[in-house]
Amino acid sequence: MPAVALPQRRLANAIRALAMDAVQQANSGHPGAPMGMADIAEVLWRGIFKHNPTNPNWINRDRFVLSNGHGSMLQYALLHLTGYDLSIDDLKQFRQLHSRTPGHPEYGYTAGVETTTGPLGQGIANAVGFAIAEKTLAAQFNRDGFDVIDHYTYCFLGDGCLMEGISHEVCSLAGTLKLGKLVAFYDDNGISIDGEVEGWFTDNTTQRFEAYGWQVIGPIDGHDSEAIRAAIIEAHQDSTRPSMIICKTVIGCGSPNKQGKEECHGAPLGAAEIAATREAMAWEHGAFDIPADIYEAWDCRVKGEVLEKNWQAQFEAYQKAHPELAQELLRRLQGELPPAFALQAKAYIQEVANKGETIASRKASQNALNAFGPLLPELLGGSADLAGSNLTLWKGCHGIQENPAGNYVFYGVREFGMSAIMNGMALHGGFIPYGATFLIFMEYARNAVRMSALMKQRVIYVFTHDSIGLGEDGPTHQPIEQLASLRGTPNMSVWRPADAVESAVAWLSALQRKNGPTSLVFSRQNLPHLERDALQLDNISKGGYVLAEEQGVLEAIIIATGSEIDLALKAQKALTEQGKGVRVVSMPSVDLFMAQDAAYRQKVLPNEVRARVAVEASHADYWYKFVGLDGKVIGMTTFGESAPIKDLYQHFGITVDAIVEAVNTLI
Amino acid sequence: MPAVALPQRRLANAIRALAMDAVQQANSGHPGAPMGMADIAEVLWRGIFKHNPTNPNWINRDRFVLSNGHGSMLQYALLHLTGYDLSIDDLKQFRQLHSRTPGHPEYGYTAGVETTTGPLGQGIANAVGFAIAEKTLAAQFNRDGFDVIDHYTYCFLGDGCLMEGISHEVCSLAGTLKLGKLVAFYDDNGISIDGEVEGWFTDNTTQRFEAYGWQVIGPIDGHDSEAIRAAIIEAHQDSTRPSMIICKTVIGCGSPNKQGKEECHGAPLGAAEIAATREAMAWEHGAFDIPADIYEAWDCRVKGEVLEKNWQAQFEAYQKAHPELAQELLRRLQGELPPAFALQAKAYIQEVANKGETIASRKASQNALNAFGPLLPELLGGSADLAGSNLTLWKGCHGIQENPAGNYVFYGVREFGMSAIMNGMALHGGFIPYGATFLIFMEYARNAVRMSALMKQRVIYVFTHDSIGLGEDGPTHQPIEQLASLRGTPNMSVWRPADAVESAVAWLSALQRKNGPTSLVFSRQNLPHLERDALQLDNISKGGYVLAEEQGVLEAIIIATGSEIDLALKAQKALTEQGKGVRVVSMPSVDLFMAQDAAYRQKVLPNEVRARVAVEASHADYWYKFVGLDGKVIGMTTFGESAPIKDLYQHFGITVDAIVEAVNTLI
Repeated sequence: MPAVALPQRRLANAIRALAMDAVQQANSGHPGAPMGMADIAEVLWRGIFKHNPTNPNWINRDRFVLSNGHGSMLQYALLHLTGYDLSIDDLKQFRQLHSRTPGHPEYGYTAGVETTTGPLGQGIANAVGFAIAEKTLAAQFNRDGFDVIDHYTYCFLGDGCLMEGISHEVCSLAGTLKLGKLVAFYDDNGISIDGEVEGWFTDNTTQRFEAYGWQVIGPIDGHDSEAIRAAIIEAHQDSTRPSMIICKTVIGCGSPNKQGKEECHGAPLGAAEIAATREAMAWEHGAFDIPADIYEAWDCRVKGEVLEKNWQAQFEAYQKAHPELAQELLRRLQGELPPAFALQAKAYIQEVANKGETIASRKASQNALNAFGPLLPELLGGSADLAGSNLTLWKGCHGIQENPAGNYVFYGVREFGMSAIMNGMALHGGFIPYGATFLIFMEYARNAVRMSALMKQRVIYVFTHDSIGLGEDGPTHQPIEQLASLRGTPNMSVWRPADAVESAVAWLSALQRKNGPTSLVFSRQNLPHLERDALQLDNISKGGYVLAEEQGVLEAIIIATGSEIDLALKAQKALTEQGKGVRVVSMPSVDLFMAQDAAYRQKVLPNEVRARVAVEASHADYWYKFVGLDGKVIGMTTFGESAPIKDLYQHFGITVDAIVEAVNTLI
Repeated sequence: MPAVALPQRRLANAIRALAMDAVQQANSGHPGAPMGMADIAEVLWRGIFKHNPTNPNWINRDRFVLSNGHGSMLQYALLHLTGYDLSIDDLKQFRQLHSRTPGHPEYGYTAGVETTTGPLGQGIANAVGFAIAEKTLAAQFNRDGFDVIDHYTYCFLGDGCLMEGISHEVCSLAGTLKLGKLVAFYDDNGISIDGEVEGWFTDNTTQRFEAYGWQVIGPIDGHDSEAIRAAIIEAHQDSTRPSMIICKTVIGCGSPNKQGKEECHGAPLGAAEIAATREAMAWEHGAFDIPADIYEAWDCRVKGEVLEKNWQAQFEAYQKAHPELAQELLRRLQGELPPAFALQAKAYIQEVANKGETIASRKASQNALNAFGPLLPELLGGSADLAGSNLTLWKGCHGIQENPAGNYVFYGVREFGMSAIMNGMALHGGFIPYGATFLIFMEYARNAVRMSALMKQRVIYVFTHDSIGLGEDGPTHQPIEQLASLRGTPNMSVWRPADAVESAVAWLSALQRKNGPTSLVFSRQNLPHLERDALQLDNISKGGYVLAEEQGVLEAIIIATGSEIDLALKAQKALTEQGKGVRVVSMPSVDLFMAQDAAYRQKVLPNEVRARVAVEASHADYWYKFVGLDGKVIGMTTFGESAPIKDLYQHFGITVDAIVEAVNTLI
C-alpha cells in the first residue's frame, strides 16, 4: 500500500484507524477484515450506497449486510463516519456490556445494522432474503411511473462465507431467481483462521458463480477505488443476474508487519504495530481522533435527506394515484395485521371447532392457511422441496419464480438457506415469511432458526412429520430430541397441537407474534377432534390448559401434547373407571404456558399434586421440568425405527396401558 | 425405454421389479430412484465393483454409498441379487419392524450397507470420508509392491444432494484433496419432490464441479450400459481428481405412465401401473419372482471370493515382509487401542492431577492430545478452520494436504462437511477421527453429529468456547441450548470437564468408547485445578461424583459442571461457614452418571435430599431432571451478550452469592 495520502485512501484510512483503535481498546476483536475492505467500503458507502443516516428506517434505502460479521468495526466505523446515531464514545465502548457496538453486528442494538451477522454464510443468505423481498414487494406494489420500492442489496463476504455450505444453497437459488439487484463483494484475501487458504480452499470462485447464473466481475484490485467504482457500475448494469465482485485484498491492509497474515485477523495489532501502521498510513491523528475534514467528507446526512425527500415526493404522488395500495404498503411495512383479521380468525377457529374433523395437524395447518391466506397478502410461503408433504401450498399460492408478484418460494432442498433467507425477508419488512420442512431437518437449518429468535423476527416455521408417528421412513427421519432443542431456544415459541382446533390457534398465535419466531410442529398422521367448552377453547392460547377434568378428587395429572393427547384421554377414561381422579392437561405450547401468571399455572398444575405423568413421543428428559423427581415420563430415550406407526408406538411403549400403569404406580 | 429385453437391460429390470414390488407390498417407499438408476447400478455392481458378497467386511472392498438413501430398494436389490446375506423374504419385509430392510439404508441392519443415508447430502460427505480414509491409510501402510489398501469409493446421488449446502463443502474439499479414487454418479433426472427442478435448481453442475477441481464426465445417457461403462473407465484413468459422472436418467424408468414424473418418486406405483410396467419391460415373472438365469448372471460370490483370495495372498506376503506394519494395520482396522494405552493414559491422568495446573480446558485438551497422540497413530484430527482456537493441533500433527500419510485435516470453514466426513472415516475403519469447532457451530453440523450417534461410530467432537464464558464475541457465539441438545441425542456421550484432570479423563473415555461418539465440551477461559483423593479421581469416569463432601448433616446439594464448579465450591465454603451441610457434586458427563447403578446414584444424590441447586452457564431447563420441582437452577434462559467474561457472569446472575442465596432459600 502506498504511504502517499490520496484523498480516497485517506478517507478509507479513517476506517482502518478506528478499527485498529477500537479493537486495541477492547483488547478483543478483528481488525483484519475492516482494514482489508476499507477501500471497497469507502467507494460504496460514500459514493453509491443510497441511505439516509438520519433515518435508518427509510423504507426504500439500500440494504447492507456484512456477512463476514467479525469485521463489525468496519460497519460501526461506516455508521459513525457517515452520520448515523453512533458516537465516537460508542466506538470506544466496542464489545462492552450494554454498548451499541457489540462484538458482532447485532440487529436492534445499533441504528443502521440491518441484520445480525457472525455465523458465517448466513449474512449472504439474509442478503438473498432482502433481495427477494425487494423484488417481490416491488412487483406487488410498484405501478407505472411509481417505483416506490427500488433498492439494491449489498453484501460483503469472505472466504469463510464461501466455504460454508449455505453459500451454495442461497447463491444457487439467487441465480435461479435472477436477483439482479443483489451485489456481493468477495473479500478475496487468501487468508482464513488456519492460515493461507490454498491448503483447504481452492475453488475457482468465478467458475462456481457463473455456474449459478451470476455475473462475476473481476478479480479487481480491492484497494483501487476506480476499479471498485467501475465494478459496481458494471454490476448495476445487469438487471437480471446477481453480481459477485471478486476483490483481491490484503487482510489488515495498512499494518506494515501484520498485513497479509492471519495474525491480524482476530486479535489486536498491539500498541507498537498500531504506531507503525499510523506511520505507514501517514495518519497523524491520535486514537479515536478523526479530523474535521475527514468527517466532512464522509458525512452523508445532507445527501441522504435529499434522497429520502425525493423518494417521499414520489411516494406522495403514489399515494394520490393509488391511495389504497399506498395504505396497504404502509400497513405491511409496519408489520400490522389487517384490522379485521383477529375477528375473522376467531370466527374461523370456532368454525373448525364446530366442524370437528379428524385430520392430520399438517392438513389442519393447510386448512388454516387456506382460511388466513386470502386475508394476509403479506404471507410469503415456501418449503424446502416438500410442499406436498408439508402442505404449505394453499389455494391462492403463486410461485415467485413464475409470477414475480407471487407469494410462494419453491426453495428446493435447501433447509438452512430457506431459513436464513426468511430472516432476511422478515428484516426487510413487508412480509411474514413461513417455510417448511420435516421436523428432523430443522437440524439442517438449526442455526438460522436460532437467529430468527435472536433477532426477534416474525418468521414462521412449519415443521411436519413430528415424531415416530411418521412411520416407515425410520430413525433418520424421526425426531426425538428436536422438540427439546426448539423449546430450549430463547424467544422461540413452539406449538405442537393436538387437533385441528389447536392447529388453527397455533397459526393465529404465530401470525400475531410480532417479536419473535414460532415453530409450528405438525403430525403426519390423523388426530381425532377434541371436544372443548368455550373456556377451554379460549384457554388454548394460554399454551396449556385442562382439557379433561378429573372425576372427584384430583389424584394425578397426565400432561400430554399433540398426537399423545388421544392416548392420555383414553388412559384417563380407564383410570376414571377404576375410580381414580385423573386430569388431562393439554400443553401445546410450553413457552406460552410458562408466560402465564403463577395463579393460572397453579390452577392447571397444582404444585401439591406430584403424581404426574407426561406423555410425548419425543425426548423424555424435557418433561422432568413438569413432573419432577417423583413423576414419570412416557416418551422416547432412543432413536426410532422403520416400521408402520402402530407397531412403533407399541414397540416403544407409548400406549394407553403404559400411561395407566404409570399413573397407578404413582397414586 | 425400449421394451426389447437386451441382456443388460433385463438384468437391470430385475432391480426395477424388486423395487416396485417391495414398495407396493410395504405400501410405502420410493420406487423412482431405484428404477431410474437400475442401469447404472447394473454396470457398476455386476461388472466393476470390487466386493465379496460372502464377506461384506473384507478390508479392501470398494465402498458404495447411496447418498439418495430414499432409493434404499436399489441397494437392497443389489445386495440380494449379487449374493449378500439378504433373502427374498427380507425384501418382502421392506420397511417392517425388525427387518433387515428398513425404509432407508441403516448401518448395522443390513450386511453390505456401509453407511446410513437418507438425510440428503450426507452420503456424498460420508463417501468423501471413505476416500480420505482410503488414501491416508494407503499412504500410511502401503509399501513398495504392496498396495494392501487400494479401493474405490462410489457414490450415487441425486438433485437433492446437490442442492444441499453440505455437497458444496465436501465436494470442494474433495477437489482440493485430490481424491482421485472417489467416483460419483449424479442421477440427473430433472425431478425433485416439488416437481421439475428447473424452477429452483438451474446450476450448471458441470461448471460447478470443474470449479472444485473435479473431472466431470458426461452428461451421458444413464440408461446406456456401454456409455456407463466407458464413463467409469474414464473416471478410473484420472487418479488425481475425483470424478463426477453426470447421468441423464428417467425417474421411475420402465413405468409407462409414471416415469419422468414426480409421482413415482415417493409412493407405490399401484397395482395397475405395476402390471403395465411388467408388460412394458416384458417382465413376465410374478412379484418377488426372479428367474434362475437372472440370479445366476447377477451372482458375484465366486468372483468376489477370488478377488478377496488374491488380495489375501498379497496381504500374507505383506505380513511376511512387514510383520509389524501388518499387525498394526489389523489392530487399527479392528478398532482396538494399543494394549499398553490404558495404563499409559492412567499414568498421564495421575500426572495431570499431580501437576495441578490452572488452564483452560481447551488447553488441557491439547495437553491430552500431546500425551495420547504419540501413542495413537489412528487419530485423524482436524478443525473447521479454528485450529488455533480449538487447540486441536498437537506436536505430532501433519496435515494430509502436505503429507499424505499425515494425521490432520485442515477442513476449512465446513462444520457440517467435517462431521459427516468423520462419519465416513470412522465407518471405513483404521482411524479414530476427531474434529473441532466452537460449541455454537455444532449447530451447523448438527444432523451429522446426530448421525454419528445413530450409527454408533467412534467420532470425537471437540467443542470449545462452551458458554457465555467466551466473552466479547457475543450472543451469536455463546451457546445456551446446545449442551441440552447434545445430551438429548441418544447414544451421544457428552463431557463438560471442570479442570485439566476431568479433561484428560474425558479424552480417555471418548477414546475407549467403541460404540458411539463423544462430545468433549471445553472452556475458552482458565479453570482452577481441583484437589481430589484417589477415590474421587477414580470416580470421574462415572460421570458424576461427590467432589466436596458436606460438613455435618447433608442439607443441600449443589450440582455443577465445568467452569461453574469453581463457583459451587466457593458457595459451599460460604455456606459451611454459615453452618450448613452442603455437598458439591461434579457432573461432567450426565450420560455416564445415568449409566451407573441406582445405588451409586443414590449415594451421590440421595433421593430424600430435595434442597438441590444446579449451576451451569447453559440452558437451565435441562437440570430440572436433577433438581425436580423443589430445587433451583442457576443458569441461562436468555441469549447472551457481548462483554468481558466477568461482566457477563454478574449480568446473568451466575455468581457465588446467587448460589448461596438459592441454597439458603431451600433449606
